[in-house]
Amino acid sequence: MRFAELWDELLPIGRDEQTGGYRRYSWTEADTACRAWFLRTAALFGLRAECDRNGNLWAWWEEGTGRAVVTGSHLDSVPDGGAFDGPLGIVTAFAAVDQLRARGFRPVRPLAVAAFTEEEGARFGVACLGSRLMTGAIEPAAARELRDGTGVSLAAAMSAAGLDPDALGPDEKRVAGIDAYVELHIEQGSALGALGAAVGVGSVIWPHGRWLFDFTGRADHAGTTRLSDRHDPMLPYAAAVLAARQAAAGHGALATFGKVVAEPGAANAICSTVRAWLDARAPDAAALDRLLGQVTAEATDAAVQHGVGLEIRRESFTAEVSFDLRLRDRMASLLGRPDAGTGRPATSAPALPTGAGHDAGVLAARVPSGMLFVRNPSGVSHSPAEHAERADCEAGVSALTAVLADLAGQ
Amino acid sequence: MRFAELWDELLPIGRDEQTGGYRRYSWTEADTACRAWFLRTAALFGLRAECDRNGNLWAWWEEGTGRAVVTGSHLDSVPDGGAFDGPLGIVTAFAAVDQLRARGFRPVRPLAVAAFTEEEGARFGVACLGSRLMTGAIEPAAARELRDGTGVSLAAAMSAAGLDPDALGPDEKRVAGIDAYVELHIEQGSALGALGAAVGVGSVIWPHGRWLFDFTGRADHAGTTRLSDRHDPMLPYAAAVLAARQAAAGHGALATFGKVVAEPGAANAICSTVRAWLDARAPDAAALDRLLGQVTAEATDAAVQHGVGLEIRRESFTAEVSFDLRLRDRMASLLGRPDAGTGRPATSAPALPTGAGHDAGVLAARVPSGMLFVRNPSGVSHSPAEHAERADCEAGVSALTAVLADLAGQ
Repeated sequence: MRFAELWDELLPIGRDEQTGGYRRYSWTEADTACRAWFLRTAALFGLRAECDRNGNLWAWWEEGTGRAVVTGSHLDSVPDGGAFDGPLGIVTAFAAVDQLRARGFRPVRPLAVAAFTEEEGARFGVACLGSRLMTGAIEPAAARELRDGTGVSLAAAMSAAGLDPDALGPDEKRVAGIDAYVELHIEQGSALGALGAAVGVGSVIWPHGRWLFDFTGRADHAGTTRLSDRHDPMLPYAAAVLAARQAAAGHGALATFGKVVAEPGAANAICSTVRAWLDARAPDAAALDRLLGQVTAEATDAAVQHGVGLEIRRESFTAEVSFDLRLRDRMASLLGRPDAGTGRPATSAPALPTGAGHDAGVLAARVPSGMLFVRNPSGVSHSPAEHAERADCEAGVSALTAVLADLAGQ
Repeated sequence: MRFAELWDELLPIGRDEQTGGYRRYSWTEADTACRAWFLRTAALFGLRAECDRNGNLWAWWEEGTGRAVVTGSHLDSVPDGGAFDGPLGIVTAFAAVDQLRARGFRPVRPLAVAAFTEEEGARFGVACLGSRLMTGAIEPAAARELRDGTGVSLAAAMSAAGLDPDALGPDEKRVAGIDAYVELHIEQGSALGALGAAVGVGSVIWPHGRWLFDFTGRADHAGTTRLSDRHDPMLPYAAAVLAARQAAAGHGALATFGKVVAEPGAANAICSTVRAWLDARAPDAAALDRLLGQVTAEATDAAVQHGVGLEIRRESFTAEVSFDLRLRDRMASLLGRPDAGTGRPATSAPALPTGAGHDAGVLAARVPSGMLFVRNPSGVSHSPAEHAERADCEAGVSALTAVLADLAGQ
């Protein structure tokens, strides 16, 4: 089976032996190895590979005419992420191409496998960077100046990889040439398990964003500075963490502080600054606004109480995305259980909302886009514990094969 | 004036141009430059310099007989620390030697200037490491295995600097040869300012310690994991921060979380672990115990509530230190204001307790030890804002000169 071979070849790249998690950050050594794997695989299937001006990879099955059906996902990971988030969509895409070939299918329109760069934003801080650049959702000048934790700019990293950072930006012709985009992804929760289904169809992406909370206090000796003389930014930060959880619970939403940088970071010194990032998502924009308002108010109160400065800056935001309704219904119907008598679908595949952003969500603003989810019995995501059974991955390949045959066969 | 010259020569070493703070971590380039300055200065004054087996520096004025009077402090800094914490005690020591020489003083016993290594514990995590090793207060095998943030062991760092890590450990002959140790230090609060005094005498060091709070949760996707499915270690950490502040206020004590490491540290991932260090100090052991008990109970409750594991480990502890009473009274009387009629001291110099650990506190367990504090109008410490006026530094030189003349002149 092609899926297993391709999967096993990609599996060891960028994996940390100690944690078992992946550290595939864009334009690093691990990323380069993933890209090489993509190019080798495209060549193996006789697909024409190219790297576009924004660093996204494409493998073209150039048959038929008109606008293309594109499927894919991303190869980069969060720090110590799992093996499936991203790569599953690429490996199943190549495996689906293989199945279509094996059954003698000839597409009436071009078909491509795409790997979008920096989807996680783990290195340069902006999620879905490659698809945002391609569709014009981020200014190329701003993107060039994004910097990683060590101060390296995106422009410098791309130059070092042999790309021209001046060429970054909207790729109108490419976008206009896409008829539909379908992204298969491991489920990031446990809904499919409860429904007893191996594959589901994405319905909406919750509005979500990332906010930097920048608390500025005063460095001081932890052993000599009276409590009343302190300007300790760790205290309002702690208040903000608890406020975010409470507000999320109150609005049926999600809020997380997962990254915090405390300076100078000595055990015997009061911090001068605490910078922390709030990730917040809600079923609708109004709930998200209320959540943010509540956290902002409580963090500000605590900051004032402790003589600490607070600036809150929105670093990214994505409004609610509804996937293309026609595409969604077509996939759900196609992947439903067949009626025993007629052989035609009798039930639809389950539709799932998600709190996570995806390149399909970015592309949805420009082209009909949809998603397929593969069951994740662990229910966890962005963790080495993330998992999909091999049989469910194969079910994903079959589902994607059916969808591509449908979209590229008419 | 010798003080100004010596001070200005040392001032630029290891200073970060952006923050104005110092990064003089032991066995780094900046530390090597500080050590070279010490050796040059000793040579300038005709003092015999040596580096002992634990990496502490000594400059000997070899006159007289019997046990030596030692004065000094440390050259290393916390991250972005101030210019005075440590170096002031060394520069004033050399300047006091210079004053004694200038007035033709001949000590009846040897006199030494000492610079203890890794006093701040900023690189290897154990404060007063050099004096602890010398007095046998830490096992040399444990010390050799201490590691910095990048995994380099103390043994490796010392080897790279040309020292033999196997020689680390108690230096009984050296300790037995010390008659008294006096450390001059910048004040780390604002008591002297309120009293209108340039110099004070140390009375006690509060019992204090450092505890590692190790919260273990589960990494998960911030955008897809339901609140009820989370094991987010950031939440009990936040509860611990607020509990520590409240407990400190309740016991007239100090408690600080100044260092926190959240893994994996991605803005869109729930943390798998949060490790944080509590620095706690109190006027007496009972108050410190109650404070710790309270923080432990509240942090544990919150951890249980969020399905998070918590281990608390004491990393260091120093019981209350009372400086040598005779030495203390002798210095306080010597440095008091003279009576207009008799010229003899009519008032004592103010006595100050401190929450901060010092090499003098470690040495106090083995030899009569004392401290002098120089007024700090900023009241802050472990910060670039830490400051002492030049005139007060000169007053410190005069005070130390008087104390050394007294101790080494009989």
